[in-house]
Amino acid sequence: MSRTRLETDSLGEISVPADRYWGAQTQRSLEKFRIGAEKMPLPLIHALGLLKQAAAEANRDLGLLDKKIATAIIAAAGEVRKGALDDHFPLVVWQTGSGTQTNMNANEVIANAAIKRLGGVMGSKTPVHPQDHVNLGQSSNDCIPTAMSLAATLEIEAQLLPALRHLAEALIEKEKAFSHVVKLGRTHTQDATPITVGQEFSGYARQVELGIERIRDALPRLMELAQGGTAVGTGLNTSPRFVERFTERIRDLTGLPFTSAKNKFEAIAAHDAEVEMSGVLNVIATSLMKIANDIRFLASGPRSGLGELVLPANEPGSSIMPGKVNPTQCEALTQVAAQVMGNHVTITIAGSNGHFELNAFKPVILYNLLQSIRLLSDGCRSFTDHCVAGITVNEARIQDLMERSLMLVTALAPHIGYDKAAEIAKKAHQEGTTLKQAAVGLGLVTVEEFETWVRPENMV
Amino acid sequence: MSRTRLETDSLGEISVPADRYWGAQTQRSLEKFRIGAEKMPLPLIHALGLLKQAAAEANRDLGLLDKKIATAIIAAAGEVRKGALDDHFPLVVWQTGSGTQTNMNANEVIANAAIKRLGGVMGSKTPVHPQDHVNLGQSSNDCIPTAMSLAATLEIEAQLLPALRHLAEALIEKEKAFSHVVKLGRTHTQDATPITVGQEFSGYARQVELGIERIRDALPRLMELAQGGTAVGTGLNTSPRFVERFTERIRDLTGLPFTSAKNKFEAIAAHDAEVEMSGVLNVIATSLMKIANDIRFLASGPRSGLGELVLPANEPGSSIMPGKVNPTQCEALTQVAAQVMGNHVTITIAGSNGHFELNAFKPVILYNLLQSIRLLSDGCRSFTDHCVAGITVNEARIQDLMERSLMLVTALAPHIGYDKAAEIAKKAHQEGTTLKQAAVGLGLVTVEEFETWVRPENMV
Amino acid sequence: MSRTRLETDSLGEISVPADRYWGAQTQRSLEKFRIGAEKMPLPLIHALGLLKQAAAEANRDLGLLDKKIATAIIAAAGEVRKGALDDHFPLVVWQTGSGTQTNMNANEVIANAAIKRLGGVMGSKTPVHPQDHVNLGQSSNDCIPTAMSLAATLEIEAQLLPALRHLAEALIEKEKAFSHVVKLGRTHTQDATPITVGQEFSGYARQVELGIERIRDALPRLMELAQGGTAVGTGLNTSPRFVERFTERIRDLTGLPFTSAKNKFEAIAAHDAEVEMSGVLNVIATSLMKIANDIRFLASGPRSGLGELVLPANEPGSSIMPGKVNPTQCEALTQVAAQVMGNHVTITIAGSNGHFELNAFKPVILYNLLQSIRLLSDGCRSFTDHCVAGITVNEARIQDLMERSLMLVTALAPHIGYDKAAEIAKKAHQEGTTLKQAAVGLGLVTVEEFETWVRPENMV
Amino acid sequence: MSRTRLETDSLGEISVPADRYWGAQTQRSLEKFRIGAEKMPLPLIHALGLLKQAAAEANRDLGLLDKKIATAIIAAAGEVRKGALDDHFPLVVWQTGSGTQTNMNANEVIANAAIKRLGGVMGSKTPVHPQDHVNLGQSSNDCIPTAMSLAATLEIEAQLLPALRHLAEALIEKEKAFSHVVKLGRTHTQDATPITVGQEFSGYARQVELGIERIRDALPRLMELAQGGTAVGTGLNTSPRFVERFTERIRDLTGLPFTSAKNKFEAIAAHDAEVEMSGVLNVIATSLMKIANDIRFLASGPRSGLGELVLPANEPGSSIMPGKVNPTQCEALTQVAAQVMGNHVTITIAGSNGHFELNAFKPVILYNLLQSIRLLSDGCRSFTDHCVAGITVNEARIQDLMERSLMLVTALAPHIGYDKAAEIAKKAHQEGTTLKQAAVGLGLVTVEEFETWVRPENMV
Repeated sequence: MSRTRLETDSLGEISVPADRYWGAQTQRSLEKFRIGAEKMPLPLIHALGLLKQAAAEANRDLGLLDKKIATAIIAAAGEVRKGALDDHFPLVVWQTGSGTQTNMNANEVIANAAIKRLGGVMGSKTPVHPQDHVNLGQSSNDCIPTAMSLAATLEIEAQLLPALRHLAEALIEKEKAFSHVVKLGRTHTQDATPITVGQEFSGYARQVELGIERIRDALPRLMELAQGGTAVGTGLNTSPRFVERFTERIRDLTGLPFTSAKNKFEAIAAHDAEVEMSGVLNVIATSLMKIANDIRFLASGPRSGLGELVLPANEPGSSIMPGKVNPTQCEALTQVAAQVMGNHVTITIAGSNGHFELNAFKPVILYNLLQSIRLLSDGCRSFTDHCVAGITVNEARIQDLMERSLMLVTALAPHIGYDKAAEIAKKAHQEGTTLKQAAVGLGLVTVEEFETWVRPENMV
Repeated sequence: MSRTRLETDSLGEISVPADRYWGAQTQRSLEKFRIGAEKMPLPLIHALGLLKQAAAEANRDLGLLDKKIATAIIAAAGEVRKGALDDHFPLVVWQTGSGTQTNMNANEVIANAAIKRLGGVMGSKTPVHPQDHVNLGQSSNDCIPTAMSLAATLEIEAQLLPALRHLAEALIEKEKAFSHVVKLGRTHTQDATPITVGQEFSGYARQVELGIERIRDALPRLMELAQGGTAVGTGLNTSPRFVERFTERIRDLTGLPFTSAKNKFEAIAAHDAEVEMSGVLNVIATSLMKIANDIRFLASGPRSGLGELVLPANEPGSSIMPGKVNPTQCEALTQVAAQVMGNHVTITIAGSNGHFELNAFKPVILYNLLQSIRLLSDGCRSFTDHCVAGITVNEARIQDLMERSLMLVTALAPHIGYDKAAEIAKKAHQEGTTLKQAAVGLGLVTVEEFETWVRPENMV
Repeated sequence: MSRTRLETDSLGEISVPADRYWGAQTQRSLEKFRIGAEKMPLPLIHALGLLKQAAAEANRDLGLLDKKIATAIIAAAGEVRKGALDDHFPLVVWQTGSGTQTNMNANEVIANAAIKRLGGVMGSKTPVHPQDHVNLGQSSNDCIPTAMSLAATLEIEAQLLPALRHLAEALIEKEKAFSHVVKLGRTHTQDATPITVGQEFSGYARQVELGIERIRDALPRLMELAQGGTAVGTGLNTSPRFVERFTERIRDLTGLPFTSAKNKFEAIAAHDAEVEMSGVLNVIATSLMKIANDIRFLASGPRSGLGELVLPANEPGSSIMPGKVNPTQCEALTQVAAQVMGNHVTITIAGSNGHFELNAFKPVILYNLLQSIRLLSDGCRSFTDHCVAGITVNEARIQDLMERSLMLVTALAPHIGYDKAAEIAKKAHQEGTTLKQAAVGLGLVTVEEFETWVRPENMV
Repeated sequence: MSRTRLETDSLGEISVPADRYWGAQTQRSLEKFRIGAEKMPLPLIHALGLLKQAAAEANRDLGLLDKKIATAIIAAAGEVRKGALDDHFPLVVWQTGSGTQTNMNANEVIANAAIKRLGGVMGSKTPVHPQDHVNLGQSSNDCIPTAMSLAATLEIEAQLLPALRHLAEALIEKEKAFSHVVKLGRTHTQDATPITVGQEFSGYARQVELGIERIRDALPRLMELAQGGTAVGTGLNTSPRFVERFTERIRDLTGLPFTSAKNKFEAIAAHDAEVEMSGVLNVIATSLMKIANDIRFLASGPRSGLGELVLPANEPGSSIMPGKVNPTQCEALTQVAAQVMGNHVTITIAGSNGHFELNAFKPVILYNLLQSIRLLSDGCRSFTDHCVAGITVNEARIQDLMERSLMLVTALAPHIGYDKAAEIAKKAHQEGTTLKQAAVGLGLVTVEEFETWVRPENMV
């Protein structure tokens, strides 16, 4: 039995592995683009399944596609959507900038799977033709941007937003748990006036919540679908009613308020919505870098760092230093943050280099966008479950550090003025004494006044 | 007469130029930070004037500040706000990361200007003290982020949004003017199906309009003011009613809906709102890069490029090649775009490196954010007035390029199928003939059919 | 038969799959870091095999490691090095920032493989202990940076440099083949004075050759190995002679002039050499973006673009537009370039965020650096073989575009002065005539003078 | 007396201020590019003076330029070089991407200054013509890249390299001064094995020294001059001997080994050498970020941080917290680092977007490159003089932190094995005891053994 079969396209015949559903165009791309190991991300493939399903339904409803063929396409596309045909999508990211061969990969796989369902011969293009039926009323140039919008939105809804909410909730829980713990604040990395540990965590929680808000505000633009623009945005060779019906089907199938792009020229020639969403992910990365950095510094020690927070011990920290536990979840998260920031630059450069009617950096944009979404989602979940949830405070240490501090002198300024308060702090600093000793020693306050005025719990 | 006077702070005495209003802390910063030539941007200085005015009004209204002193401070701060005292703000961007000395610069200048108004001696700190009166209820740590929010928002409202609207309108005007001009579309930089010049401009206009939407969505977060958080976000040493009154005054003075930040810890320790707005500017830069690139390629020539658009000739293009006119406004705008993209990385790095209760990269963030706003504003105005507004089309050239193209074959696909259409195009391409010749020659269509089916004006 | 076995570390027992060679620390990391799908790159794993082999050889030679144990470790490490045990390295990039668990993964796999060779029981740590024997005289903190240096250098030598040379040679071949083809130059995307196609390609070739030079200049710093620094750079718990012998073994095994880092503190706490090399890759990406952009614009058409170059047709260009061939190799390469530029930002951010004695962004640095090297290598090869090598020129088109141009007027300037030359060009431009007609019409030159002076082939 | 005079170019007449030396082309650019406030950097202007002087000398020596005219041009260009005519260079960065109008600005100013010297009428172009004489044998397209190379190299030699050496020397001095101070090392921000403060500073010094090496390696490529390529790299309209003589004059005038670019096409169409040098500055920024971050964390406190280092107090740290001293020089330097990293992205984007024979992002590249050089130079000097030079150690604090640490247990591992050492550390950690207590309590070592084996000074 032959292990290959012949497939054809406008350039002629080509052998493909007999057990693979893809056709000639996929095979050509596979052979001509042996670049890297990064395959087209699965969420994009699944979104193409969704897209082809919705398109076939729309074409069927509009009477443009034979019912039997439509039914077979819808079933095959549904398999792609659910991930059952992942092995038939072998193409790498580093291919044509329109993603044309990945759209054709979907067309070819769905056509062959539908042909099989209908008892036909794979590669025969009958009774289901990859372009004339599966791609009916579509072009790679509107399918790929549409699939990008679908994939990114679905990943954000299913993965990133829940992960951010999970993290925000854990932070809010810590905010509550530590609301009574008064500690020394730090500005410029230096001792500052008191704050509670809960207040610090409230700031982190607010950063994450604002991240969710930012995503929510940017989503509607990402959810504008290019479908219906076909090759250059004019909608050539597609039915005027197709776009409307297609968008309805997408809304039904996803339960999400996708819309048809107001201007299809913009939607194909530019990827500003992706650049914008990447910018939002970049803000979230910035927030996470700040939060994870703070937590690792506050947990530094165990004995000779700040030592205010205690992190869960998930693994031995070192192959040479026994007993050491490292802030490894912080490290994983900050590495994710650095990756997302770099991905954002890639997406920006790619987004800015579109020419004329088509931005030809689509695969690299979607690869980076989906990687950023995935890493932030997984990173937040891991950080929450294996770090934040298990954080405790070392109250004795916190109390000790706060009481040592000279910055409590600020509480005296409203009573004795800024300049005298400064004098007390300077004296204590130079002589290595407590503030109280310096204040009383200078005759500027009495012991009773000091104890009444300098109460950290009243300063937060 | 002495050309210097002595000013003092907690470190002691220091000489300052007699005719300058600044005091000891400004002078120390001036001497210790001889780095670069980039001064703190004037919009930030003016925003500090506005802030100090509103603070003095709030403190007066709450009975915390003597009326006479308040009146003098309000007048002096008003002068700072209007730019009358710009020469008294000599500090560079590359200073302390909290911007403390710039807040002190404002306190010192306003105090001395107020002292002068009240007939006092500059540097005496009576009857107006820079900290006890001008900085009353404030800290550098809440003033500087507040001034950043104010400055960036005011610049966006007064400069950037009008400039973007100006550009969008000019593009829409061209969209209308060129709506009848059918041309060859281009994808992958290659000949594609027809489109109108108006449709191309509609895509550009949409990019700019979406940019305006993006700013509008991000603004509310930028407009959350840190004021009232004082040193670490707890609001130590400020009146509970101060924040409320201060925010009211700011709203009145600006006519804009600024709010008090929900979480002051976040507002001081992070600058996510600035990173977000910079991300929006980055999208706008991406859009402008695309638009300006398209325009310069479409206007390439005059004889041996694409030559579809004609740009206004603003200057001789070359010192050696007479008669040449270059797309210099496109070049200026794309350089602005590159700058904004790099500034965004600086802001991201700076935003992610805050530690504990204070982000100590405030000056570099505000410098880059305000530079990006300014350059985009000026760049869009210049590009609109000296390029877009004067663009005309070379209709003969456009017609010629379109008619030559093989891509009109797409119009045949719905009639004779994809594969036969491809065959025609291939033949014409190989033999250097027109499509009609190839189509008829292959016997696939008649002349009449060809002329009926292949009409570019029906394909857009 | 049990499908798992118990492995132990200082935190206790843990189940691992019975057929996997890894131990407790690997298993813990696997469970705690479910982030993304990016595994530690294989070149790094293979470099760890090389490292462990060289270390065992050095320890054996110095009499620190029993010969029988050494022999088993060397054999097992050799298998890791050759890729025979790739399936036993399951950890993702997003783990501890020191890469400790990946070093332990290597120690555990090599120990178990060596135990197996010696007839022992996997997981028993006898007779070969992952730390006491495989990691003897080492720490994760010096192993991982050493493996990074090794992996990146070996990939550069084996992949990137040959790929760049391959591209440079193909460009030089085109330079020669097209050296006689005089064409119109273009500056500002506008018509300029003549140049040959060969000269254009010589510029591209020079860019690639300089890229090779840049790598050569940066390599010695990347090839400084941290090994011997152990945990913090002091070399605690390692023999003074170990470093020397280890480095010799590495040089022998690789045939490359690796050196021991002059300062081990720098080599562990910073990754400046990786940031530098990434900067060099960033320059190469910049060069490739320029070259690929030029080629796709010069090949734009086929009929209504510049059309000077003809690219090989590797695949059908569009699912809707028959006969179209796209510059897909250019698109793949420019996407690679965008990725490398973004990776460089990730590496820069990661490199700048080290703290104290250890940079804890090692995995993200090595992942991005190795991805950049791989993509540039594969990208250059694909671009060379499937695009550059097959480029031909359309001489008729080139001739036509050149003769149309007004810029040949420059040849008149030395004869009649700049201002008069400009007058001729202006007249021809306004009246749509040839330069000759305008020049003679203005009475500024005779026909003979024109034909003698304006010869493009003399202008290049 | 008239306050303006008329100047002319090929577009006609235009008024310029009577007391300014610039001409028509400068004036047009001034009016058409009202973008931002960033003027073309003075080092570039001065380099143009140098260039025009060398060109006039070369043209004179080759007999191409009348001696009297040459002498006047050389004198006028010398004034530009020395900065005496800075006020006559009003153009902003955001202009044509070739910098043509800035080259013309130099031609015009030098021509008028030379005319004045020769008793002529400004604006008359006699006896000195800006193009025919000052620009003789040159084009903006080779002048501007040449001036970029000259300006960047001269700034690096005169400012940056001395500043880096100054910093390296100060760090080496601290390395020596603190070589005896044994302290706790920190990895993952956590307690690790001992190290000396001197060793830490040796790592910083090495980073800076390698930065100097990196510059040295990249300089030769930056020092390849484009001069002689004229408009597109072919050298049209310039004498074959001009390049040679020009390069000699530049070498004599600067004392630096500038060379003529091997390939002029590359030198005009690309700015890879600038992207490369910016990449080196990016590495240096990375190093400085690491060093300044370490120093501020190690100096954190004064009472409740790590407190190992003591920084000089340059200014009062806060407007509300008396007695506080902040690491402001670290903050300025890290802000500079963030700026340089962002500038690098701008330069990369600009460098990658050249098209055909000319990269049209020259001004934005040179602006960012020169800003990065200046900021790093000034930043290093300020950081050295106002921070590093004054750093002292708090030996008591360092001793205390080290003795508390559990990580000294590493010293036991070679004696009692890794697992038992880990057991001791764990016990001490859980029970809050010293290592000695835990070790002896477990019966694993005697007091004498502990004291003999655990000696931090032997562990560094």
